[in-house]
Amino acid sequence: MTELRSCSNGLCVLSGGVGGAKLVLGLSRILNNEDFLTIVNTGDDFVHFGLKICPDIDTVIYTLAELVDQERGWGLKDESWNFLNKTKLLGGEGWFNLGDKDLATHVHRTQRLAKGDDLTSITKNLASSFGVEAHLVPMTNDPVSTVVETSEGGLAFQHYFVRDRCVPTVKGFRFEGIKSSVINPLIQEYARANDKSAVLLAPSNPFVSIDPILNVPTMTDELIGMKGPKIAISPIINSKAVKGPAAKMMQELGVPSTSIEIANHYKGLIDAIVIDHADAPLSEKIEGMGIKVFITNTVMHSLNEKITLANECLNFIEAYWKNTW
Amino acid sequence: MTELRSCSNGLCVLSGGVGGAKLVLGLSRILNNEDFLTIVNTGDDFVHFGLKICPDIDTVIYTLAELVDQERGWGLKDESWNFLNKTKLLGGEGWFNLGDKDLATHVHRTQRLAKGDDLTSITKNLASSFGVEAHLVPMTNDPVSTVVETSEGGLAFQHYFVRDRCVPTVKGFRFEGIKSSVINPLIQEYARANDKSAVLLAPSNPFVSIDPILNVPTMTDELIGMKGPKIAISPIINSKAVKGPAAKMMQELGVPSTSIEIANHYKGLIDAIVIDHADAPLSEKIEGMGIKVFITNTVMHSLNEKITLANECLNFIEAYWKNTW
Repeated sequence: MTELRSCSNGLCVLSGGVGGAKLVLGLSRILNNEDFLTIVNTGDDFVHFGLKICPDIDTVIYTLAELVDQERGWGLKDESWNFLNKTKLLGGEGWFNLGDKDLATHVHRTQRLAKGDDLTSITKNLASSFGVEAHLVPMTNDPVSTVVETSEGGLAFQHYFVRDRCVPTVKGFRFEGIKSSVINPLIQEYARANDKSAVLLAPSNPFVSIDPILNVPTMTDELIGMKGPKIAISPIINSKAVKGPAAKMMQELGVPSTSIEIANHYKGLIDAIVIDHADAPLSEKIEGMGIKVFITNTVMHSLNEKITLANECLNFIEAYWKNTW
Repeated sequence: MTELRSCSNGLCVLSGGVGGAKLVLGLSRILNNEDFLTIVNTGDDFVHFGLKICPDIDTVIYTLAELVDQERGWGLKDESWNFLNKTKLLGGEGWFNLGDKDLATHVHRTQRLAKGDDLTSITKNLASSFGVEAHLVPMTNDPVSTVVETSEGGLAFQHYFVRDRCVPTVKGFRFEGIKSSVINPLIQEYARANDKSAVLLAPSNPFVSIDPILNVPTMTDELIGMKGPKIAISPIINSKAVKGPAAKMMQELGVPSTSIEIANHYKGLIDAIVIDHADAPLSEKIEGMGIKVFITNTVMHSLNEKITLANECLNFIEAYWKNTW
């Protein structure tokens, strides 16, 4: 059992799926559940087979429950695929991998949404059923859909990401429904109660995991209103994404896939960025942008590495409060 | 391979789930698909987890596809239960046994209904996907819900049958939505094209499998309009139901659970009844009611027994046309 520590003045984490979930798992092992809030991206959410699927929320819950399939990074371990295989035989869509156990989550959520429950309370109850008591909140209760603008036209995120395996060339992104979406009231509540909270941007895809969160109306105001340090963890190491299409997207958008550009992407919002040892040579350039750089190991394969990176992030935050940045 | 035969002037079968499906399987092995129409009860249908489930249609399809779990009589063989087990862990309802493979059927049907397709075309396509080309039609495309009136109040059929394991004492039945339901147009079409068709009431539960079909407006007119013989196969052998609650229901309704009462139940509609050798002593009394009795083996464990009973039924029909009744 790792010893618990605290984060002075609170901690608010922004997370997408796999990479973000790993960091949140690390944090959950060293912080009390009451000591941090995780805002989860819901731009990836979609309706498939009539079921509401929230990939990032589910990945975070499954990861914190330590029931996630480690190899895939998503879905449940010891999963079976009989529903999906039979669906394919019936001529149904087989491109989205829906495991039999995983289906229970989506059916449960869909039923509760149909009853009028909001995504926040459903997420809380689902997490709790999986034994997860960390505070996880969707960025909004309203449906937002990330659309990837590509050489083949606009693609719903899961179509781009899963069905088309990120092959189409990316030209941009839009978040349908975002303008009319309402920030999750629990985020405002948290910001009010923790006006000196730190903000941590998990090493998630900046375009399709973090940006949807940041584009929810009033979200950046709320985050900036928190007077603690704002730190991003770069999802890029040595010009490659640890997982997912972040680097490919940057290249297709005509931007070098480096941690410099990650810092640049979040400029104006973040005070500091955490980069991997491999990217240490980039420090000077990033610090030249007025962004503090922390260098550590950002690869999180083992649970120990997740906890270590989480601890490092908390150290960086504590250093801020001790005026030792 | 069993040799195919024909049924002079056509054959229309009324069927519920398990028992009816066995007879239809036997018939499907000796008749061309074009030579008979099976009308399937949909009074058992219900919505569960937001999914439209048609237990009798599915049992008939799975049985004809020879994919039914032989021991249970319903559901698919080699099934897994990961969705259901996980759903129970999430606090969801676990009383209705939804297998992972089986779920594909319900999700497919639910999606297509949501798109506006009718149950008839969905059933045809589903059957076809399972390699079943026999003509199976739901009694109506409209939702009808069998309610079992019991000592504990009205119970939706699946609640009575599955959740409460037929324990509550039966007082009667009603079929919600039946008055406004419209007979499946394919039945009228069949009746017009086969005005001398025989009608076979499968050995299904008379109260909850056959009666819903007979209560669809104009259904009995259409059946009576077919000028062939009308024959019921008794689901009762030696005062017991081969499967299911038919005998228990009869007793609770104050009626002896005998093939005599089955004949009495269908009096006015049927010309003949097929009873098991075990019930041979009841023949005289039934024939006294003006209903012809055929005696044969009505137990259908093996495929061979199903084919044999199907053949016997066709023999009885042929005898009618040869004026040898």
